[in-house]
Amino acid sequence: MCQLLGMNCNVPTDICFSFTGFQARGGGTDVHKDGWGIAFFEGKGVRVFLDPQPSATSAIAELVRHYPVRSLNVIAHIRKATQGAIGLENTHPFQRELWGRYWIFAHNGHLVDFFPEFNGEFMPVGQTDSERAFCWLLQSLRRRFGATLPEEAPLFAALHELTLEMTASGQCNYLLSWGESLIAHCSTRLACIERKAPFAPAHLKDQDVSVDFQEVTHPDDRVAVIATTPLTDNEDWRILTPGTLCLFRDGSLVREAATAAGPASPLTGNA
Amino acid sequence: MCQLLGMNCNVPTDICFSFTGFQARGGGTDVHKDGWGIAFFEGKGVRVFLDPQPSATSAIAELVRHYPVRSLNVIAHIRKATQGAIGLENTHPFQRELWGRYWIFAHNGHLVDFFPEFNGEFMPVGQTDSERAFCWLLQSLRRRFGATLPEEAPLFAALHELTLEMTASGQCNYLLSWGESLIAHCSTRLACIERKAPFAPAHLKDQDVSVDFQEVTHPDDRVAVIATTPLTDNEDWRILTPGTLCLFRDGSLVREAATAAGPASPLTGNA
Repeated sequence: MCQLLGMNCNVPTDICFSFTGFQARGGGTDVHKDGWGIAFFEGKGVRVFLDPQPSATSAIAELVRHYPVRSLNVIAHIRKATQGAIGLENTHPFQRELWGRYWIFAHNGHLVDFFPEFNGEFMPVGQTDSERAFCWLLQSLRRRFGATLPEEAPLFAALHELTLEMTASGQCNYLLSWGESLIAHCSTRLACIERKAPFAPAHLKDQDVSVDFQEVTHPDDRVAVIATTPLTDNEDWRILTPGTLCLFRDGSLVREAATAAGPASPLTGNA
Repeated sequence: MCQLLGMNCNVPTDICFSFTGFQARGGGTDVHKDGWGIAFFEGKGVRVFLDPQPSATSAIAELVRHYPVRSLNVIAHIRKATQGAIGLENTHPFQRELWGRYWIFAHNGHLVDFFPEFNGEFMPVGQTDSERAFCWLLQSLRRRFGATLPEEAPLFAALHELTLEMTASGQCNYLLSWGESLIAHCSTRLACIERKAPFAPAHLKDQDVSVDFQEVTHPDDRVAVIATTPLTDNEDWRILTPGTLCLFRDGSLVREAATAAGPASPLTGNA
């Protein structure tokens, strides 16, 4: 299984600390050696760093770790290839434009026989089920909403429906953002934490690195971090129930919906 | 005026030498301080490094200069803002997907009152005339050719017509690639060189750096480099006639067409 990392904040924040632990999982403390990537939204723009090399030994990952890009929404991915060869065109996260916004998507899981029909508006470049899922999501959103980015509530409801449809084909833990909010879907495994005042020290699980967030934050800061498994060993991460779709905005989980029968909460919009 | 740099090769080649001279023009030997970017095609995938910082002092540019990404098609740009604020969303090169290929575009010039009608398939994210031109080009290509990437000859003919239309609005030196070939349009200023055996030493204009290409190449290698002005001071660059559209494939200029009345050659396909 691949590794996902997302961040959503209310003020532009760098992800250097979390990325330090995450990076180690790509060929260091874990086996995900088949490339990695990270996307930073800055205003309406987005920067995507992709590398088919293992993140633990990647020169580009070293740059990202030491270069504090401040962003409201970040999506990163470390790949363990299941569908599609190792190569740049199969390296997540994927990027497209819709409604004059860049959209970024990273996926972990396995969609079986997922070959939706494409009308040509969003076509996969590589061979992964993940990129097919992304193109199908965007095609479906445009079909539903036409020419304009909808409000958050109907957009979330549409993503909920589409995710339900997609999960019928298999596992799809995913992160999605268009620069404003961040969507996280836990199909099998995903954890999150919302950091806010009072801030405390945190210690990475994958490397012996600590940071005292109180020293580097303002009391109003809010930062949500989402990862396949918790990145720190001294904080209270929430392990998401399989079958949960979340929308994070301004560093807080503001919408949540169930995508599987069971103990997950029903569709709510506590915005 | 911004600075353009392109490379098209018959074997994957790194652009470290040319980029070293080019990088110096972004706030060093020249005044283009408003961001820079570079795109490398690797197979069907593409890596785009963008930075709203001046390239001469950019940590990302330092990485690119020392990290030999081997590519058949590269497009780089250093910006001097004319339309659109300094910011990531206005930083070239721009990227979109069409026909399951990534397309990369960088522009230098100024299009006056160029506000084409968009049908929503390719929408600008930022505020530049350049991104509008790119979106309009892709929209027009899809309208003309439908669902599939056409052959090179009709594609070049279509780009010739569209470029003629665009030049009616002003200056548009541009570089465009979909990973196979590289299109270069000289509206006012662009130079190119085709390096092939016998290779010789080259010395940069903007920095005191030399390379002996004979030591780092194979006799069959062919590399075309396209830049706003020649990058070396001891090689025989061709200064393109204003109003020339070129297509480079496998390191050679293989198609050429005039986009202005005057001495430029008529539409030819010497492939």
